[in-house]
Amino acid sequence: MLKVCKFGGSSLSDEEEFKKVKNIVRSDDSRRIVVVSALGKRNSKDYKVTDLLYLTYQHLKYKVDYSELFMQIKNRYLQIEKDLQIQADLEKEFGQIEAKIAEGTISEEELVSRGEYLSAKLMSVYLGFDFVDAGSLIHFDYDGKVDEKETLKSISEAAANHHNLVVPGFYGSYPNGKICLFSRGGSDVSGSYMAKGSHADVYENWTDVSGFYMADPKIIENPRRIKEISYAELRELSYMGANVIHEETILPLQDEGIPLEILNTDHPEEGGTLIKKETPDKTHLITGITGKKGFIALTFLKAKGADKLESILSVLNVFKNFEIPIEHIPTSIDSFSVVIEKSKIEEKFYDIIAELKKLPDILTISEDDDIALLAVVGRNMVKKTGTSGRILSVFGQEKINIKLIDQGREEINIIIGISNADFNKSVQALYQNFSGEKI
Amino acid sequence: MLKVCKFGGSSLSDEEEFKKVKNIVRSDDSRRIVVVSALGKRNSKDYKVTDLLYLTYQHLKYKVDYSELFMQIKNRYLQIEKDLQIQADLEKEFGQIEAKIAEGTISEEELVSRGEYLSAKLMSVYLGFDFVDAGSLIHFDYDGKVDEKETLKSISEAAANHHNLVVPGFYGSYPNGKICLFSRGGSDVSGSYMAKGSHADVYENWTDVSGFYMADPKIIENPRRIKEISYAELRELSYMGANVIHEETILPLQDEGIPLEILNTDHPEEGGTLIKKETPDKTHLITGITGKKGFIALTFLKAKGADKLESILSVLNVFKNFEIPIEHIPTSIDSFSVVIEKSKIEEKFYDIIAELKKLPDILTISEDDDIALLAVVGRNMVKKTGTSGRILSVFGQEKINIKLIDQGREEINIIIGISNADFNKSVQALYQNFSGEKI
Repeated sequence: MLKVCKFGGSSLSDEEEFKKVKNIVRSDDSRRIVVVSALGKRNSKDYKVTDLLYLTYQHLKYKVDYSELFMQIKNRYLQIEKDLQIQADLEKEFGQIEAKIAEGTISEEELVSRGEYLSAKLMSVYLGFDFVDAGSLIHFDYDGKVDEKETLKSISEAAANHHNLVVPGFYGSYPNGKICLFSRGGSDVSGSYMAKGSHADVYENWTDVSGFYMADPKIIENPRRIKEISYAELRELSYMGANVIHEETILPLQDEGIPLEILNTDHPEEGGTLIKKETPDKTHLITGITGKKGFIALTFLKAKGADKLESILSVLNVFKNFEIPIEHIPTSIDSFSVVIEKSKIEEKFYDIIAELKKLPDILTISEDDDIALLAVVGRNMVKKTGTSGRILSVFGQEKINIKLIDQGREEINIIIGISNADFNKSVQALYQNFSGEKI
Repeated sequence: MLKVCKFGGSSLSDEEEFKKVKNIVRSDDSRRIVVVSALGKRNSKDYKVTDLLYLTYQHLKYKVDYSELFMQIKNRYLQIEKDLQIQADLEKEFGQIEAKIAEGTISEEELVSRGEYLSAKLMSVYLGFDFVDAGSLIHFDYDGKVDEKETLKSISEAAANHHNLVVPGFYGSYPNGKICLFSRGGSDVSGSYMAKGSHADVYENWTDVSGFYMADPKIIENPRRIKEISYAELRELSYMGANVIHEETILPLQDEGIPLEILNTDHPEEGGTLIKKETPDKTHLITGITGKKGFIALTFLKAKGADKLESILSVLNVFKNFEIPIEHIPTSIDSFSVVIEKSKIEEKFYDIIAELKKLPDILTISEDDDIALLAVVGRNMVKKTGTSGRILSVFGQEKINIKLIDQGREEINIIIGISNADFNKSVQALYQNFSGEKI
């Protein structure tokens, strides 16, 4: 039995959090691979170390004195080292970083990566685990894509050579050995590769929440926790709503079917959300309700006699040329719409409209920029005929106007477009009607 | 006041029908332009003259004796001429056609067009109206598309030069004067151009039904007649369901907002369906229920990391290259479907799948070939919030599984995919629940 445990910044903010981590790791012998983030906030007014490191680099870039800022970072690590009464040689580590800064040879990526590096140094000494640098495990190509084959090989070897180990999250190395970062939040993804490469039985992602909720706690008071969910459902939920984990976390786990568990470092006894390949929860009708505001729908009326498919293709090609991702393409007989996230089109909006107006296949273009998309997710919906109808009838009861519906083959998920102003009310109505329903 | 009246083949099948036509035309002085089809069936075992003419041409082509077949056609026209006791010189007309056949100089299009030509000759003498040949009014370019400018000019002149006139439907001429046909049923379109070119106040389309019904009378016993409908709604209804009028009929009328009335030659007193630019019926929630069986949905799961828009484009381009029209593109997060009429893909199915399987963006393709599409049409639906939900909840009540839903911006129409086996049951359930509902 092997568990890979990743601890996020909030689980590493001070001495107390480090102690909680040690208790968690020590309570289960199979927790032999630990991935850590940089130090997080100790309270709501505090800073994340990663943010401070980015800011330090900006100081270097504009040649503004960074010493006070860098001292804040240094003090946080040294304080924890002192409080935990361990010898992690952090003074020496900071000396090396400062020397590189002084030489002007440190890249932004390398400087920022030191947050995770120093966390891992501290944690490895504190746990008595081996330290293994992420630069020797996670291999990127020069485009910044993970070289999965090399990465899994290195991880597999490290897992064989070390009984237990701590590895920094968030980074790896280019083929020339220089540091390369994942996108923000990427320590989750580091953990996924560690789990895959070491053939772990489970990947535990320890954070400051006890898993996922059926709906946004900002909209629903005390929403029900999702105890078990499938990869696919999670991806659908996180695609449209707030992310607890990095979007790319699931991909490496899927191939080997490694379950991912989201757990709370402050309340391990609460349990969390278990994410598996197959839908594990066979009881609840719907798994979650999510969504996002701020979409726009452009509706195209095709010209007399124009071919519908060709009209759609010519419109989609304009969006492709402008590199605008599109979400939905509701089609009617002589018209079709394209639904886009507003923030992704705003900057180029007038240029795109000008291009679209040139298309000979299109007669008119109309616009509705007040669209929120809601997704009701649940693999069990397909088992209960009529679920779509019942979900949609809630909108009628609440007098909420539906702007668009997209439901693909079978009732696996249903996406509903409404006015932004109706968003919270819709989530509340759906939650009230369906959160407790069993199949 | 000017009315253009088009009479279909069923209104021209024998002496009795000609008399009904005369009564209708004579009862209203504004009915000054009459468009006629070829003779239709006198009973269910009879033949349409147009079918017999096509068959005659096949005899010529394969050099098989056609004389008996042609005699049947000739006798039908001569019998009506005799029964009506008029002198339309049809013997001479048939002589000219037979001479051309003997010379081998008659084209298929010209031979087939003689059905309408002879009907118009007979009708013009019987009504005492001028005969004007369609070849001099409806002008096609060499691609078989109507040259609208020339056509409307010729019609406008003819309407000015003749107090009243009869014109054959279904055909016109190429720039070189040779006969060119509309697609089957195209006499409806001839009438539309006559109405537009003559600036008619209304275009009456006389046939054997008293207009359109809310649902197919083969599925619903005595469905409610649609008394008034907008062009757009009619197009939506006829696109998906059985056609009473030729699909292209509406287009010429739209620009000038000329209303079209579908009336019954056998029961003019019943009234019919009036089709106008704006939705005229402000009382009923839904205008009609229609649909078609025999669709297939192909669902594409995009490859890890592939761009959704690029994946959709690459798939749609394959369909474009094979000239396959597509109906809907339901989109989810990592997958999307393409819905196609089965009959339009069947022949090339395996070639298309082979091409689609080559696409690097696509991981898997799955297929559901048991889809019927239902459309609920009605411009008034948008005025009553919650209509979509109520419509869809009917499927739940009836335990009918919904395979897909496509509803574009606002609740103008909603398209629902179900199993073919559930089609009639669905239409019946929707009709029962909504046919009588007022807004």
